[in-house]
Amino acid sequence: MEYRRLGKSGLQVSALSLGSWLTFGNQIEDKVADELMSIAYEQGVNFFDNAEAYAGGKSEIVMGNILKSKSWDRESFIVSSKVFFGAEPKGVNRVGLSRKHVIEACHAALKRLQVDYLDLYFCHRPDKDTPIEETVWAMNTLLQQGKILYWGTSEWSAYEIREAIAVAKEYHLIGPTMEQPEYSMIERNKLENEYSMLFRDHGIGTTIWSPLASGLLSGKYNDSRPDDTRFSAIKSLGWLENKRLTEENIEKARKLKAIADELGTSLPKLALAWCLKNPHVSTVILGASKTQQLKENLTALDVVGLLNDDVMAKIEEVLQNKPEAPQF
Amino acid sequence: MEYRRLGKSGLQVSALSLGSWLTFGNQIEDKVADELMSIAYEQGVNFFDNAEAYAGGKSEIVMGNILKSKSWDRESFIVSSKVFFGAEPKGVNRVGLSRKHVIEACHAALKRLQVDYLDLYFCHRPDKDTPIEETVWAMNTLLQQGKILYWGTSEWSAYEIREAIAVAKEYHLIGPTMEQPEYSMIERNKLENEYSMLFRDHGIGTTIWSPLASGLLSGKYNDSRPDDTRFSAIKSLGWLENKRLTEENIEKARKLKAIADELGTSLPKLALAWCLKNPHVSTVILGASKTQQLKENLTALDVVGLLNDDVMAKIEEVLQNKPEAPQF
Amino acid sequence: MEYRRLGKSGLQVSALSLGSWLTFGNQIEDKVADELMSIAYEQGVNFFDNAEAYAGGKSEIVMGNILKSKSWDRESFIVSSKVFFGAEPKGVNRVGLSRKHVIEACHAALKRLQVDYLDLYFCHRPDKDTPIEETVWAMNTLLQQGKILYWGTSEWSAYEIREAIAVAKEYHLIGPTMEQPEYSMIERNKLENEYSMLFRDHGIGTTIWSPLASGLLSGKYNDSRPDDTRFSAIKSLGWLENKRLTEENIEKARKLKAIADELGTSLPKLALAWCLKNPHVSTVILGASKTQQLKENLTALDVVGLLNDDVMAKIEEVLQNKPEAPQF
Amino acid sequence: MEYRRLGKSGLQVSALSLGSWLTFGNQIEDKVADELMSIAYEQGVNFFDNAEAYAGGKSEIVMGNILKSKSWDRESFIVSSKVFFGAEPKGVNRVGLSRKHVIEACHAALKRLQVDYLDLYFCHRPDKDTPIEETVWAMNTLLQQGKILYWGTSEWSAYEIREAIAVAKEYHLIGPTMEQPEYSMIERNKLENEYSMLFRDHGIGTTIWSPLASGLLSGKYNDSRPDDTRFSAIKSLGWLENKRLTEENIEKARKLKAIADELGTSLPKLALAWCLKNPHVSTVILGASKTQQLKENLTALDVVGLLNDDVMAKIEEVLQNKPEAPQF
Repeated sequence: MEYRRLGKSGLQVSALSLGSWLTFGNQIEDKVADELMSIAYEQGVNFFDNAEAYAGGKSEIVMGNILKSKSWDRESFIVSSKVFFGAEPKGVNRVGLSRKHVIEACHAALKRLQVDYLDLYFCHRPDKDTPIEETVWAMNTLLQQGKILYWGTSEWSAYEIREAIAVAKEYHLIGPTMEQPEYSMIERNKLENEYSMLFRDHGIGTTIWSPLASGLLSGKYNDSRPDDTRFSAIKSLGWLENKRLTEENIEKARKLKAIADELGTSLPKLALAWCLKNPHVSTVILGASKTQQLKENLTALDVVGLLNDDVMAKIEEVLQNKPEAPQF
Repeated sequence: MEYRRLGKSGLQVSALSLGSWLTFGNQIEDKVADELMSIAYEQGVNFFDNAEAYAGGKSEIVMGNILKSKSWDRESFIVSSKVFFGAEPKGVNRVGLSRKHVIEACHAALKRLQVDYLDLYFCHRPDKDTPIEETVWAMNTLLQQGKILYWGTSEWSAYEIREAIAVAKEYHLIGPTMEQPEYSMIERNKLENEYSMLFRDHGIGTTIWSPLASGLLSGKYNDSRPDDTRFSAIKSLGWLENKRLTEENIEKARKLKAIADELGTSLPKLALAWCLKNPHVSTVILGASKTQQLKENLTALDVVGLLNDDVMAKIEEVLQNKPEAPQF
Repeated sequence: MEYRRLGKSGLQVSALSLGSWLTFGNQIEDKVADELMSIAYEQGVNFFDNAEAYAGGKSEIVMGNILKSKSWDRESFIVSSKVFFGAEPKGVNRVGLSRKHVIEACHAALKRLQVDYLDLYFCHRPDKDTPIEETVWAMNTLLQQGKILYWGTSEWSAYEIREAIAVAKEYHLIGPTMEQPEYSMIERNKLENEYSMLFRDHGIGTTIWSPLASGLLSGKYNDSRPDDTRFSAIKSLGWLENKRLTEENIEKARKLKAIADELGTSLPKLALAWCLKNPHVSTVILGASKTQQLKENLTALDVVGLLNDDVMAKIEEVLQNKPEAPQF
Repeated sequence: MEYRRLGKSGLQVSALSLGSWLTFGNQIEDKVADELMSIAYEQGVNFFDNAEAYAGGKSEIVMGNILKSKSWDRESFIVSSKVFFGAEPKGVNRVGLSRKHVIEACHAALKRLQVDYLDLYFCHRPDKDTPIEETVWAMNTLLQQGKILYWGTSEWSAYEIREAIAVAKEYHLIGPTMEQPEYSMIERNKLENEYSMLFRDHGIGTTIWSPLASGLLSGKYNDSRPDDTRFSAIKSLGWLENKRLTEENIEKARKLKAIADELGTSLPKLALAWCLKNPHVSTVILGASKTQQLKENLTALDVVGLLNDDVMAKIEEVLQNKPEAPQF
């Protein structure tokens, strides 16, 4: 396993990590979750990603039970939670980024995960109804109390992250260390364009999600629509299905598959390696519902070396979506 | 129930809330207090207001016992205390806003209320004999320790609140979030005039008390002086009785009653709705000694919509007390 | 004429103002420029917009001569310049936002405009090769020297403006007051979406350009391509011509013309009034090559009152380009 | 003459000073103005108060001509101007406290007064349409440029002054040194109550105006309404006449006259001495239209020693208007 610094921070995170979204406490049995975590840990994965909202809190309970059952040193892994959407039950002060919810949600996550502190704690979305200042302060309070080690954001705009950095500076607090954006061959703008100055000037790290573009780049939709996918399993993901599984995107997936074939690798591994090649990616979060799939994807680092300039140019020709800053 | 942000903060507070002043541990039986809190909670009230000085500390004990007896999640309610006047017994360092008293009073309130933290903690009055700096620091210490979530003031001048904001800024601390001023059709200057720039420039929220002007706007004094009032029950309130129950004010109450009649509502509901209409009111604290009275007043939000420009003008004509900023 | 605050600043700027881009020193005779400025000033316009790059510096020379020839008090008007592209001749340190160029360009603009100070001084574009810190400091140096009164940006991203605000705060300098973005019915994203938090949290004002979308909303392209346009006159604007004069946009212009007809006004006045209705627009910069055209457009404020909810909805239906913040 | 520090500053100001409001360039001949300034200067007065708005700018022109004609060292006197209301001609950016007006008004005042710098520069009123931050910055710019030495406010609320102090602190700028409030036996609240903490905690000095309550305490209205007063001369002062010359106030003036008689002094000297006795008064600004009147009033310092506790108590009994902070 390769380890990378989380942005400019000193924290070393495995280049590939394991997320529990849609799977733990939901799409898969707890036993499978246990197997997945064990495989990952044995392969050197040190980061397990979670959130209060995943399976309404159950994802954290499942992961907490697994962590509890293992003999893994607390120092050997990094575990996260995220606050914003609320776990079950919902309530008027159980969502968003108010100090009350940020703090109460942390306490609840610590309990569900059965740990004394979170390594990473994310603001899962921006909250227009709470001043960023209040959230930055709340994160710091938790940090000073030893309940979290690093805090960050997920799917915030560059502007909002800059606001959080400014507020932290102004009040002499610890600002955000990382952002968790969506990033894949299909969804590139935030990481390759919008965040450029955040990387250059502020050293933000990234823990990217959906590197396979919701399964599109697994190649499973290349020929026909299979039955046993997350879109079949979880009805509420219809919006994502519509956005990702367009004919145009599936056509791209087919062409990328051809490139993978030429390189003697698989499409998903090509897609993951392509993400890993971006120096602003600190870690690629893998989702997995099957052990075999995870084992396969964990070898994606081997493919990064194959991505020379020629291959990258060929991929770019297929993708046709390189984001550009405004020209004058 | 409608929920409002507490000023610019991210905390959502019910537009109507329940206070224990003069009633809990004093004018009413604990059983009635329990019924009042249950009714309020079921109607969506999420804020219960208290203070160390209410009934010499007994008000917090009563409320703490009730909270303990319920199965309400801690996340679902907001509970406050206030420091300044001291609970019983009094003592030289048991009053005011010194660091010793602010911190010791918080500990005592947590014990009486049987909670791990207060959501809101108020400086009940300004303390001329303690630097505001010392109090702001003490509040921050409690906040960083997780013993309070938001702190504020009650009956401070705009200048004093601005001093606290400036001190917090200077030392990089968390400043006051809210103020608890008296506000009603009869007592308007602070909220409508003195605090204007605090609202505009600093986003202070308000949890207003005495919306019925010490019972004047309940209408019970409109015809004659009844026997079973707080003024009969609590002898020490003579000063308030003299200030509120003037012939001029009672005449206003009679005319407002006529307006309420026309709108098909009651005088107290009209008076509460009028407070709720002010956008700088985060929550109106209701006092109640009878369940029927509370149930009735909790429907005051329905009346806000009736207060159109015409009705507001009629009310203004009766009140003749609109505060104005100095003209040049 | 209506006057508006330039964002949160205390400066009052006429809601309609006159810009010299493409016209002064270029498309029009100096005599016409003089007539245009006189008409504007007499109608209450108090802001005249300029830049070092307009006509390679000639635009400022023309405007300076006109200002010199009038008996207008310096207090009665606001004049701007912008730095980035350089005037003629160009040179390696005659472009960009280095301290050397920001300061030298200001001196040159003061000379060309024959004034002692600029009211507004804009960074005409962001400069990736100069730290924002250096530019903010340079602006402050000029401000403290009395050579400029307010500084701002043009076509910067929200992130970049936030960076400038943060740097100013950190070093205790005066941050940017205004931004000059393109804004019209056709180009809406920056003003209606990207800058939202800059308006809400930082009070940035805007002096918008191209309110008629490069002439598209004058209606002159509705029937056929006329000969005497800026696109005929200035060959280098081909990129703009291609971007604006699409068949889709011309079709929109035709439909908007029908709405203008119904309201008994003209298409350009409708388009200007629509910009003026946005509360985040401090002033709409008019370009004009003919006196009649300017006189007509200066009456656009009369149309704002006609834009009720129904009309706005009809316009939205034609435009189909309302920007939206990301939804979760 | 006695000299006092202007608040906590090191500037020594004569306890009695000369103001030009209503007289210079208006009610009196320039020759009389010259005589008044000469008498004052010879008696040790070192502060001459002025404002852009006094007589539409003429007051400063008259004073400037007088200062020019004398051989007084620049170091031997203190001269002020005030910005807010504008001189003639008025204009949209020629009033208020925007950076443009604060700076342009300073330049204009320097020209009218024919001096290189103002010793004191006041914000004549608060400006709700300009951020206090912008005004504080503008004052500092002038101060750094050497165009003013101290800046302050006039008739601002304690809150607004505290805001200015906070902003100055936050940006590391020079905050306000003094305030010019109305103060007399009749108008006491600001100086004796509202500003208490400004004096105690921030060392603000005061240059008080209208110590004779618009002439009421000259005693000239004690018997009948004379013809040759400012109220006869300047019709626009009707509002002030109505506020001051009430029967209640005139009755007070009569009783105070009796006390003055007992002390063997005059009513105006008693009234001035009473102001001088307040330690928070840095200087009492005298207005005068006649040389005799000025000579007389300049001896008021002799009376301060007569104001022992008994006399002060007697005066208080007459006034019945001692301001009090709220009691709890």
